Amino acid sequence: MRISILGGSGFLGRRLAARLAADGRLGGRAISELTLFDLQPPDPPPAAGFPVQCLGGDIAQLPPAAIPDGTDVVFHLAAVVSAQAEADYELGRRVNLRGTDAVIDRCRRLAAPPRVVFTSSVASFSGGQGAVLADDARQVPANSYGAQKAAAELLLADASRRRFLDAVILRLPTIIVRPGRPNKAASSFVSAILREPLLGLHTDLPVAPDFALWVASPRRAVEWLLHAATMDSAVMGIDRSVNPPGMSVTVAAILHALDAVKPGASALVRRVHDPATEKIVATWPAAFEALRARTLGFAPHEPLVELVRAFIADDLDATRRERGLG
Amino acid sequence: MRISILGGSGFLGRRLAARLAADGRLGGRAISELTLFDLQPPDPPPAAGFPVQCLGGDIAQLPPAAIPDGTDVVFHLAAVVSAQAEADYELGRRVNLRGTDAVIDRCRRLAAPPRVVFTSSVASFSGGQGAVLADDARQVPANSYGAQKAAAELLLADASRRRFLDAVILRLPTIIVRPGRPNKAASSFVSAILREPLLGLHTDLPVAPDFALWVASPRRAVEWLLHAATMDSAVMGIDRSVNPPGMSVTVAAILHALDAVKPGASALVRRVHDPATEKIVATWPAAFEALRARTLGFAPHEPLVELVRAFIADDLDATRRERGLG
Repeated sequence: MRISILGGSGFLGRRLAARLAADGRLGGRAISELTLFDLQPPDPPPAAGFPVQCLGGDIAQLPPAAIPDGTDVVFHLAAVVSAQAEADYELGRRVNLRGTDAVIDRCRRLAAPPRVVFTSSVASFSGGQGAVLADDARQVPANSYGAQKAAAELLLADASRRRFLDAVILRLPTIIVRPGRPNKAASSFVSAILREPLLGLHTDLPVAPDFALWVASPRRAVEWLLHAATMDSAVMGIDRSVNPPGMSVTVAAILHALDAVKPGASALVRRVHDPATEKIVATWPAAFEALRARTLGFAPHEPLVELVRAFIADDLDATRRERGLG
Repeated sequence: MRISILGGSGFLGRRLAARLAADGRLGGRAISELTLFDLQPPDPPPAAGFPVQCLGGDIAQLPPAAIPDGTDVVFHLAAVVSAQAEADYELGRRVNLRGTDAVIDRCRRLAAPPRVVFTSSVASFSGGQGAVLADDARQVPANSYGAQKAAAELLLADASRRRFLDAVILRLPTIIVRPGRPNKAASSFVSAILREPLLGLHTDLPVAPDFALWVASPRRAVEWLLHAATMDSAVMGIDRSVNPPGMSVTVAAILHALDAVKPGASALVRRVHDPATEKIVATWPAAFEALRARTLGFAPHEPLVELVRAFIADDLDATRRERGLG
């Protein structure tokens, strides 16, 4: 089985590559080759028992070697994310939309249509705190990233109908806990209120404790990606998009889980008013029904406390080192 | 007021230009200049009381003069339609998607964001005979044309949110009666069962008499385009798309209206089995609620008999001459 990961240097791309290297197999078949593609050639995962090709380039001018002849599965995770796509319209359109067109065009040239697992986003929806979105809810994006992702979904579904490729599209929830440091993304606080206190640092909370969010852990996201790569897609018909079964959680519940794992840690979280962030996050839907995903075999989410413990096990030490926190 | 029509040689573009020439005004303001753009320079409308510029070119490489500085309203009607977009994937994507990107990019360069009236289509939906689609129904296109139109809607709504332009998007029903001759489009029969008998010619009906369709007349479509050009768009918020109030009619009702206008004419319509066409039209939604459009001031549809009489008044003689039917 030949696999490509586009966006192989990203947060999920690196975890997915490491997981494939550890497993050596996908869907019961041995992995014979892995290709990683990103702006700069990604680092190969440690200890892969199969050849790993690492390529750099512009996804809108996708080099054919990024999806070699005979590729069975493409994980298309390459994206310009929300804050950047909002700041740089052309760049977002180029990567999120033209990049997807380039993936379609390359897949058309293969002898057999590969499975393409694409990550769309909860950011392609609006609806706000009152929303519990059904599986057939319409995407009315309130940001350029979400609009580009929703448009890319349409193009991939159409390419699947035409049998250029065989897409399964996951509209990922907000993924927490992201390692690293706080950034300017409006969603930065959702990871920060767990990560920073676990590092012993103060952090700001720009929303009220009863603010609800649709979230998932990196571990669960990787499991969903693997399932999307190997499931039967024929049952999806022409609708190739899935809202996977994340969790609808309040900020208070997140902080409660934090304190359960590290008593008193939530005292490091300070409520601050931040009207700019409040305006953006007010459009985010708080919950999804996600019934179709369960029918399609996507596993439900683990409890919040487990999500916090997984961050500690997987990422806390590396984050501490990366940030020079000894 | 400066106006551009992209797709100025098309069925609706020509009618719209003629109407603007006849009115001399739009939304209470005098028209100072009209620009018509298409693959080849369109013919100017007869007897316009203002300058008309006619340009030809590739919309994906839109010449700036197609939307001159100071343009107030752009009617973006340029499209590769359903049968052609299905036959030629690259061409459909180039015109329907890249063309829309080019329109967005040109509008961004203007001193003030122009109103952009864009024609999307009922073909961006599926659902079939059982469907009565609500205004927030999700677009699950079953053809490339519909997928490209739905993607273009997302890009135009995002460009409106960013204030690059000010879009109002009409998802037009199947427009009947089209003049000319039968073609290979799956929807060809919907016009043919009125036009051909009125010309005294036999025609084939590939669906059962109780097959229901969502239709509108060319006259009504032009009225909606004019309303979309001048209405208050602020009340639409970030959702710039409207399902205008067409009519859900059965084939039997269409033939009944035909006989009311020209007794016995429906005897020229022969039921034939055509599984290829049946498969395509089976995905078309038969009805929409179209409540939002009424709130936004789009006028409801005239009765079918009036639609048939309008075709006779507007197009029958020209169609007869064009087809050498004396």
